[in-house]
Amino acid sequence: MERTLIKETPKKIGEQVKVEGWVNTVRSHGKIIFIDLRDRTGVLQVVLQPTMALDLKEENIISIEGTVKERPSKMENLEIKTGKVELEAQKIEIISKASDLPFALKDTPELSLPVLLDYRPLTLRAEQTKAILKVEEEVIDEFRKTLKMMDFFEFQAPAIVPTATEGGSEIFKINYYENSAFLGQSPQFYKQIMIGAFERVFTVAKAYRAEPSVTTRHLSEYVTLDGEMGFINSWTDLMDTCETIIKNIFKRVGLTCENELKLLGAVIPEIKKDIPRIKMREAQQIILERTKRDNTKEPDLTPEDEKEICQWAKENHNSEVIFITHYPTKKRPFYTMPDPENPEYTLSFDILLKGLEITTGGQRINGYSQLVENIKKWGNKPEDFEFYLQAFKYGMPKEGGFAFGAERVVKQILGLENLREASAFPRDMSRIDGRLNSNE
Amino acid sequence: MERTLIKETPKKIGEQVKVEGWVNTVRSHGKIIFIDLRDRTGVLQVVLQPTMALDLKEENIISIEGTVKERPSKMENLEIKTGKVELEAQKIEIISKASDLPFALKDTPELSLPVLLDYRPLTLRAEQTKAILKVEEEVIDEFRKTLKMMDFFEFQAPAIVPTATEGGSEIFKINYYENSAFLGQSPQFYKQIMIGAFERVFTVAKAYRAEPSVTTRHLSEYVTLDGEMGFINSWTDLMDTCETIIKNIFKRVGLTCENELKLLGAVIPEIKKDIPRIKMREAQQIILERTKRDNTKEPDLTPEDEKEICQWAKENHNSEVIFITHYPTKKRPFYTMPDPENPEYTLSFDILLKGLEITTGGQRINGYSQLVENIKKWGNKPEDFEFYLQAFKYGMPKEGGFAFGAERVVKQILGLENLREASAFPRDMSRIDGRLNSNE
Repeated sequence: MERTLIKETPKKIGEQVKVEGWVNTVRSHGKIIFIDLRDRTGVLQVVLQPTMALDLKEENIISIEGTVKERPSKMENLEIKTGKVELEAQKIEIISKASDLPFALKDTPELSLPVLLDYRPLTLRAEQTKAILKVEEEVIDEFRKTLKMMDFFEFQAPAIVPTATEGGSEIFKINYYENSAFLGQSPQFYKQIMIGAFERVFTVAKAYRAEPSVTTRHLSEYVTLDGEMGFINSWTDLMDTCETIIKNIFKRVGLTCENELKLLGAVIPEIKKDIPRIKMREAQQIILERTKRDNTKEPDLTPEDEKEICQWAKENHNSEVIFITHYPTKKRPFYTMPDPENPEYTLSFDILLKGLEITTGGQRINGYSQLVENIKKWGNKPEDFEFYLQAFKYGMPKEGGFAFGAERVVKQILGLENLREASAFPRDMSRIDGRLNSNE
Repeated sequence: MERTLIKETPKKIGEQVKVEGWVNTVRSHGKIIFIDLRDRTGVLQVVLQPTMALDLKEENIISIEGTVKERPSKMENLEIKTGKVELEAQKIEIISKASDLPFALKDTPELSLPVLLDYRPLTLRAEQTKAILKVEEEVIDEFRKTLKMMDFFEFQAPAIVPTATEGGSEIFKINYYENSAFLGQSPQFYKQIMIGAFERVFTVAKAYRAEPSVTTRHLSEYVTLDGEMGFINSWTDLMDTCETIIKNIFKRVGLTCENELKLLGAVIPEIKKDIPRIKMREAQQIILERTKRDNTKEPDLTPEDEKEICQWAKENHNSEVIFITHYPTKKRPFYTMPDPENPEYTLSFDILLKGLEITTGGQRINGYSQLVENIKKWGNKPEDFEFYLQAFKYGMPKEGGFAFGAERVVKQILGLENLREASAFPRDMSRIDGRLNSNE
């Protein structure tokens, strides 16, 4: 008999079917046993006689043949799509036996983060984890879809890079045959180079940061959603594009992840027709007025500042998203375009969502000599950038771009406590799958 | 004035427009100058007076305002979509000046591979290179599309892995904080783990091979299109899925890359309704009969064998694609399912396209104890696989999967000589962007 997917069972009342999946829960009522069976499409209640209940522990994989029945109306479970039916089992076969679980799968949300990750192959199966990853899938797919619609070309950026170009201490070194190489901190140079061929490009790539710090908002390996756009009229084109991306992502997740949002108790963040855009210095001034905390001389917003200015945007603009613009030239990479009106600041921006930076972007220097000069000014040697500089030597339009941290977008939409929860297999200072230091 | 994209100009005869792009070629006829202007949508002929032709060298980026005119019919160029029109320039502005080119962009196909790659930021702009990358974009997108339609879940596999699990010498080592880590040779373990959560998964990921050899068919970093499928009825389900993927890719590229195929002189490979499937030992026997080359005791097909058996399939089955099945157990990884009818061979397969392996796949061992035993038999320690093994300890259905090498698929469809041509930024033993050894 062909397997029937669980989501199809409500359409098969009275029919004989075979379902296959994991034993989600077992409830024995003496004369009768209930199983919740789980497959990729849902959960189904199965009713069986104790004599049939051979070794029915959680996470065993079983195959059950039986008849789909309507549940008595007072036994309906309107929380799930299959809640009006149940399967009356006639035949059970065990496909794969599970060992004793270290915890019940339904208790996954109560686990501490180290345990959640130590048992990742198991906790990935919990409906909460699956819901998070489903949202991630939709976020990434909508990023791609939106940019394709805007005529961006998708390319595959490399992760192995030849030099430590953006800060030597925060980069992973690779033994590369007889040489050394590094894991790229972003696809920045490659997307800029691709402008010469396709004008508008994007890539879904991995980025690597070796910052030796443990926070709730950093991963050593993360998914970066990178776009770059040539022939812009103004650097505000970049913010407009980001605004479209964010609105489309919110819309898409709202449409396709209704159940996931409900399960996780999350609501799509509020957004105005236009996302507010304010300068970093203005933001610091507002924060000073609201909190008496004077960070107006600081070259960047602190994590507390980011939370505070988002609070302000929510109270004053009904927006949980905000653009912060014009970061100081000295704090941005050498390729960032200075503001012609005040070259101490750049034509750059961050996007904050509910208190956390999810995107960074800006216009780039597209003139060859200005770029060479800036490389020197930042203490680097132009000959180390010979490959990258070719893109500018042979003609580069006015351009800029942006990068979204995929896990951060997911974390903030869902209100997760730790960025690690938004990654299927998070890597950090002390963990790659298992823990790296036994004395942790 | 708003920019008009070049592809729109044929619809704007008689209108005043502004176009922007790269100077592709310049042809001076004394009293009149022709430019071919290139943007992301096409090439347009521009006519101008010598007095306007300020510094018009190739790869300069210019903005031109002028009037779109119909060309005299004998001056039409039916090879290109804008060949019936030209722009009579009234105003020219230089946006970005290019340095002298080391070669004319149109000569890119004549360059030696090292030069092609030394000047990659420039040669990416050549129409032949763009055509190759366009085909790559379509191949990858169709892989995703096909598997999504078949209810596969897309996840992001990590590239940093904790141990050198599939052969220590061919793996890149990373300095990972106070520890060592490695670049994954495939997302194999992670996609298998994900089966427990989503049953059917795929990922577009990077894979890394540190083989110290230079061939036309290996890259140190490549794009792997990986799928894994739980609850299979038979391992042939995996081949059926691969067959659908290949057919869809061929169809898609044929539809969306007509111009690219024409430009590169490529034709979508021939394929039968059913792709032939033969055992490796049968293939060796056929090769022996055809060539008198006796490799029937070898545990794998040699590159020459792969070419020969493809030739046979073409001649005898009108198919440029063939499945080779049942590779010897000893030559496959420890997780490969042995054939119950003859455990010296596995339920595994490769797909060869026009003489080259583009895909490898097979059923996996899904029983926990059998897997632990095999890990030992292969000389490894089960405790090094503790994380991976959890997926099997807690219930794993009958499953298997496959991996397509994206660049290889592109190379073979297009008949490229070297795999490096199918990658925007290829990495190998002697090159990451630039050359690694100055004495090369």
